[in-house]
Amino acid sequence: MSAPREQLLRVQNFMLSTDGFGTGEGQSIERPFGHADPSRLAAWAGATASWPNRAEPGGTRGLDDYFTRDFSHGIGAEIMGRGKFGPQQGPWESYEWEGWWGDEPPFHTPVFVLTHHPRPSISLSDTTFHFIDASPAEALRQAKAAAGGLDVRLGGGVATVRDFLAADLVDTMHVAVAPVEIGRGGRLWESPDELLDRFHHEEVPSPSGVVHHLFWRR
Amino acid sequence: MSAPREQLLRVQNFMLSTDGFGTGEGQSIERPFGHADPSRLAAWAGATASWPNRAEPGGTRGLDDYFTRDFSHGIGAEIMGRGKFGPQQGPWESYEWEGWWGDEPPFHTPVFVLTHHPRPSISLSDTTFHFIDASPAEALRQAKAAAGGLDVRLGGGVATVRDFLAADLVDTMHVAVAPVEIGRGGRLWESPDELLDRFHHEEVPSPSGVVHHLFWRR
Repeated sequence: MSAPREQLLRVQNFMLSTDGFGTGEGQSIERPFGHADPSRLAAWAGATASWPNRAEPGGTRGLDDYFTRDFSHGIGAEIMGRGKFGPQQGPWESYEWEGWWGDEPPFHTPVFVLTHHPRPSISLSDTTFHFIDASPAEALRQAKAAAGGLDVRLGGGVATVRDFLAADLVDTMHVAVAPVEIGRGGRLWESPDELLDRFHHEEVPSPSGVVHHLFWRR
Repeated sequence: MSAPREQLLRVQNFMLSTDGFGTGEGQSIERPFGHADPSRLAAWAGATASWPNRAEPGGTRGLDDYFTRDFSHGIGAEIMGRGKFGPQQGPWESYEWEGWWGDEPPFHTPVFVLTHHPRPSISLSDTTFHFIDASPAEALRQAKAAAGGLDVRLGGGVATVRDFLAADLVDTMHVAVAPVEIGRGGRLWESPDELLDRFHHEEVPSPSGVVHHLFWRR
């Protein structure tokens, strides 16, 4: 029998442009990715059989499907920045709006939203959003405690991933680089080489045109 | 909410030589793969963090790890040929020997062993081996019924995979071709192109040197 499983912090299916941006400029309720078109970043995932938002049967079952299939596999909680929940900044003016994710959010676990302005938790179907004002290390501690022994997904956005990388808390990271340029907005890197001092790195081109970058701790 | 999930028959992590062999010649209790050296076929998988038989922490978390991690993901039963259970042929001379898989088999589900010589079922830890004399279609029916709504893994060996391909029962297939030649024994194909009339095909080279072949129904 194996020893109790180590709980990892994993970035999964993080979508990036060839010039290193995860989102554009000018986020709003109508445009969560600002001037950037998220459908071009996500096209590779939406084509797969395991895409959680797939409305009809079918879809590809090649390499890209391993990544969409793995999105929730072994994950017991997510951590995200406030901008992935909604575009509001500063104190909440109302609690009425419950985020971009609809009545059936694709997380199915506790989600810890990092914000300097906590608000009461929200349960939508089997996802519960908790709003916490915490350092990356403290947020990870809370998420691991809530994850039932499973791994924690670091959901982004870019600034949140950068904060957790700076705190050296990320164990594995999968970034899918789509063949599109964004030009300005939230940038993860100028080059994946910036991470090579701390991570192993594999670069795997998919027949779909996306390039999967896989990192794990040295 | 999504409709009830279709149950697939999936070949996962099937290990092959560059010349298309899954096993060598002259199988025996001491040499399950005959003259071939299985460690050379399996080296890519054994190096990964998610390899089920891993004895020590560590291991790679790149592309190959997605495949070992996916081995049991969504699987509720396995079907295997008799040769994957043991080397005996013809009527069982004794029920004492309980297969190659030890006290903790890596399946953790019901396993249906195809044989013209049924014997009583065997439970080893959370794996139960059932021995059935059945056509591929009937074996699949029994395995799906036992899989609790999940998919069924087709475990091999080569002759079993070929039988299920001939019966057009395989939905997805992952074959990992290692950089080794076997020369004689059990052969899956002369070329993966033999399957292109019925399957989509992606060929994904891994940095480890193995080449992953992914097939799904057209």
